[in-house]
Amino acid sequence: MNIRFTLHIIGNILKFLGLLMLVPAVFPLIYHEDDLWALIMSALITSGFGFILERLTKPRHGKNEIERKDGFLVATLAWLGASLFGALPYIAYGALTNPADAFFESVAGFTTTGASVITDIEALPHGILFWRNFSQWLGGMGIIVLGIAILPRLAVGGMQLMGLEAPGPTTEKITPRITETAKKLWAVYLGISCLLVLSLFLAGMPLFDSVLHSFSTMSTGGFSPKNISIAAYNSASIDAIITVFMFIAGMNFVLIYWFLHGDYKRLFRNSEFKFYFLLNATAIILITLELRTSVYHDIFESFRYVSFQVLSISTTTGFATENFDIWPSFAKWFLLLLMFFGGCAGSTAGGIKIIRTMVLFKKGHRELQKIIYPRAVVPIRIDKKPISDEILSSITSFFLLYLFIYLFGTLVVMAAEDISLVTAISACAATLGNIGPGLGDVGPTSNYAHLTNVTKVVLSFLMMTGRLELFTILVLITPAFWKK
Amino acid sequence: MNIRFTLHIIGNILKFLGLLMLVPAVFPLIYHEDDLWALIMSALITSGFGFILERLTKPRHGKNEIERKDGFLVATLAWLGASLFGALPYIAYGALTNPADAFFESVAGFTTTGASVITDIEALPHGILFWRNFSQWLGGMGIIVLGIAILPRLAVGGMQLMGLEAPGPTTEKITPRITETAKKLWAVYLGISCLLVLSLFLAGMPLFDSVLHSFSTMSTGGFSPKNISIAAYNSASIDAIITVFMFIAGMNFVLIYWFLHGDYKRLFRNSEFKFYFLLNATAIILITLELRTSVYHDIFESFRYVSFQVLSISTTTGFATENFDIWPSFAKWFLLLLMFFGGCAGSTAGGIKIIRTMVLFKKGHRELQKIIYPRAVVPIRIDKKPISDEILSSITSFFLLYLFIYLFGTLVVMAAEDISLVTAISACAATLGNIGPGLGDVGPTSNYAHLTNVTKVVLSFLMMTGRLELFTILVLITPAFWKK
Repeated sequence: MNIRFTLHIIGNILKFLGLLMLVPAVFPLIYHEDDLWALIMSALITSGFGFILERLTKPRHGKNEIERKDGFLVATLAWLGASLFGALPYIAYGALTNPADAFFESVAGFTTTGASVITDIEALPHGILFWRNFSQWLGGMGIIVLGIAILPRLAVGGMQLMGLEAPGPTTEKITPRITETAKKLWAVYLGISCLLVLSLFLAGMPLFDSVLHSFSTMSTGGFSPKNISIAAYNSASIDAIITVFMFIAGMNFVLIYWFLHGDYKRLFRNSEFKFYFLLNATAIILITLELRTSVYHDIFESFRYVSFQVLSISTTTGFATENFDIWPSFAKWFLLLLMFFGGCAGSTAGGIKIIRTMVLFKKGHRELQKIIYPRAVVPIRIDKKPISDEILSSITSFFLLYLFIYLFGTLVVMAAEDISLVTAISACAATLGNIGPGLGDVGPTSNYAHLTNVTKVVLSFLMMTGRLELFTILVLITPAFWKK
Repeated sequence: MNIRFTLHIIGNILKFLGLLMLVPAVFPLIYHEDDLWALIMSALITSGFGFILERLTKPRHGKNEIERKDGFLVATLAWLGASLFGALPYIAYGALTNPADAFFESVAGFTTTGASVITDIEALPHGILFWRNFSQWLGGMGIIVLGIAILPRLAVGGMQLMGLEAPGPTTEKITPRITETAKKLWAVYLGISCLLVLSLFLAGMPLFDSVLHSFSTMSTGGFSPKNISIAAYNSASIDAIITVFMFIAGMNFVLIYWFLHGDYKRLFRNSEFKFYFLLNATAIILITLELRTSVYHDIFESFRYVSFQVLSISTTTGFATENFDIWPSFAKWFLLLLMFFGGCAGSTAGGIKIIRTMVLFKKGHRELQKIIYPRAVVPIRIDKKPISDEILSSITSFFLLYLFIYLFGTLVVMAAEDISLVTAISACAATLGNIGPGLGDVGPTSNYAHLTNVTKVVLSFLMMTGRLELFTILVLITPAFWKK
C-alpha cells in the first residue's frame, strides 16, 4: 500500500474543495447577506488543511502510483474528508449548531442522498443554500468517475460489467485513463445540467432556484432551497421537466455520452436501460391506476404526481411534489421497494442498481430450469453476453451484504430510539439507497432533525456505505485489509 | 414422467387420510357433541375418492417407480389434496361456511402454519378441534420425510446438505430407503410428542388440551383449542415446558435421532445447531433487556415472555402468551426478521432455515476477503466440509426466490385490499414462513378472518410454497417441466 501518496491525493482534493467554497461566497455580496465570513473561513480552513497535508505527504522517489488497495482508501477518505470539511459552512454560519447535524447534512450532500436535518431551509442565506446543493453536484461528479472509471477496475460487486465501454484511452496505466474518462463524462454532466437550468428558467423558476435544482436533479441528490421541495412552484411544466431530467440522471452516463456522439443504437440495445424504463413504466402505470380515484380526481392528475414521485424515488433523487406518506399501502410499499432497486450503474443514482437486480432475477429464474434439467449448463446473459460465475457470485454477495447492512442498521436505529417500525425501515432504506425522504416521521413533509445523535451517525454511515458501493468501506473494516 | 403412478400414490394417501378422520370421531361419542356425522361423512368422501383414484390408476406392467420430476408432483399434490379434503370437516360441520376460509384453515393445518380464520375457537366441538390440531401433527410427519428423505435427493435449494446422515439403508432404490428412514424418524416424533403430552398433563393442563398442544408444538404448527392460545393457562411451568419443546421441534430430527441413540457428539459438533442456539439466545437476551423495565416489572418476567415469544416465532410455531404487537419497534422488527430465518433443516419448522442463513452470511463475509485477495480461492465450509459452488449457487437462488415470492405476495395483498403496511408485510412473512400470527391486524390477539378471499387464496399459496421449499411448487408452473 502507498498510504503516503493516498493522503497526498486527499490533500489535493481538499485544497480544491476549499477553493470551490469561494464560489457561493459571491452571493453574500450580491444579496447583502451575512454568510460571507462563514464561507471564507471554511474555505481557508479546508484549503489550508489540504495544502499542508499535500505538502507533508509529497511522494518520495517518484512513488506516485496507487495500488489496488489504495483505491478503496482514496475513495472512502475523499468522501469522508469532503463531508467533514463540507460541514464547516453550516457550523461557521450557525445554520446547524450540533456537529452530528452538520455532518449529517454534509454527508447527505456529498453522497447525493438529500436527507436533511434543517427545519426551515428558506431562512438560510443564498450562499449557504448554494453550497448545500453545490455539494450534491460535486458529489455527483465524484460518483460518475468512481462508478465508471475506478470501481470497475477494483472488481467490486460486479461493477466489472460496467466501465467496459467507457470512453477514454485503453491504456493500462490507471491515472491517465481515469483523467480522460472523467473529463469526457463531466462535460456531458455539465452540459445537461446547463440545459436543465435553462429549461427550468424558461418554465418560470427563478434563475437561482433553477441552478440549485439543476445541481440536485443531475446528481440525483434532491436538496431543494424550498421547505416543501418542488411542490412550492405548483407548476405542471416544472414537474414535467424535472421528471424527465431525473430519468436522464438515473441513466448510465456512458450511454448518454455515446448517444450524444451519435451512437443511438447502443442505448436502445442496452438491456439495463430497457429494464430501467420498463420497471419505472410499470410502477407508474400501476400506482397511477391505484390512485386514480382514491386519491386524485382523474387519471391525468394521478399520472402527473405519480410519475414525479416514482422517478424521484427510483432514481434516488428524493424531491417531492406530494406527501406520498398518505398514499395507500400498496403505493407506499412499491415506493419503498423501488428505493432498493435504484437507478442504472454508471449514473449518479444510488441503490442496488438495475443491472444487479436484473442479474438476480435471472439467477432466480435459472434455478428453476436447473432443477428440471440438473445437468444443463445455463449461463446468465446480459446484452447477449454470458456473465462469468465470478461476477455472478460477486453480485449476489453484494446483494446479501446490502441486505445485512440494511437489516443491521434498522435494528440499531430501533434499539437506539423509540421510533415507529415504518419510520425506521424507510429511514434506513432511504439513506443506504441515497434517496433522502422516507415514510412516517421521515416522510416527505418531515425531515431527519428529530432523530437522536446515534441514529444520525448510523444513518450517515449508511449513506456513505451505500454511496461507495458497500465494499469500498467494508473492506477497510476487515482486519485482512491492513495486513501486509 | 409417471403421472399414473403419481396419482396412484395420491389416491393411497387420501385413502389413509380418510381413515384418520375417524380418529376424532370418538369425541362426539365421549362428549355427546353433534360433529359425529360431519366427521364420518368427510372420512367417507375422502377415503372413497382416494380408493377410486387408487384403483383407476393401478400401475401397469410393474411401472411402480417414480422419477425425479414425479417427486415434485407427488409432494405438491399430497399437500394440496390433504388440504382440500382436510377442509371437509369444517364445512360439513358448519364451522366455516366460506370455502376459501375452510381451505385456508386446512392449509394452515397441513403446512403446520397455524394461521387461523376461526374467531371463536372454543365454541367448536372436541372432534373438530382434534382434527384441526391432528392435521398439523400429520403435516409435521409429512415434512420430516419430505425434508430429510425426499428433497435432498431431488437436490432442491441446497437440501443436499441435509439428509446425508439420515438413518436408514444406504440402498440406491428410493422407496425402501424413504420407508425405513421415515419409520425411524416418526418413532422419534411420536415418542417426543408422548413425552410432551405427559409433561403438560403433569403441569396441570387438561389431558385433551395436552394432546392437542403436543400435536401443534411438535409440528411447529401453533393451533390451540383456546382463543387466547397458551396465555389461557397463565402458568409459568406450562410456558416453560412448551418453550423447551418448541426449541426441540425446531432442531434437525436426524440429530435428535442420533442423540437418542447415544451419539451426543454429532449434535454438539453440528454448526447449524450451534448457530440456531446462538441466534435464539441473542434474540432472547437483547429483547429481554429491551423490555425489562419498559414493558415488564423485572428481568425474570421479561425473560419468561420473551423466550416464549422468540422461540414461538423463530421455530415458526406461532403460539402466543403475550401480545407482541404492542412491544416496541425493535422487538417487533426482530421477531419479523426471525420469521425469515426459521428453524433448522430437517425439523418441522418453516422459513429459510438456519443452515441456508449461515451459508449466506459466510458468502457475504467471504466476498470481503475476495476483494482484498482477488486471486485467493476461499471455500465456504459447514462443519469443516467445503460446500460446492453448485450447492452455494442453489442456496442463494433459493434465498432470492424466497424474497421475490415474498415481495410479490405483499404487493398483491396490498393491491387486493386496503390494509396497513405492517399487517401486509407481516402476514406474508408469517404465511410464507409457516409461522401463523403476524403483526398489526393479523397479530397474536387477532386472526386472518377479516381478510378478503383474494388475500386468503394468496396467503394459502404462500403457505404451501413456503412449506414445500418453494421449488417443489415453482417448477410445476414452469413450462419446461411439462415438456417431454
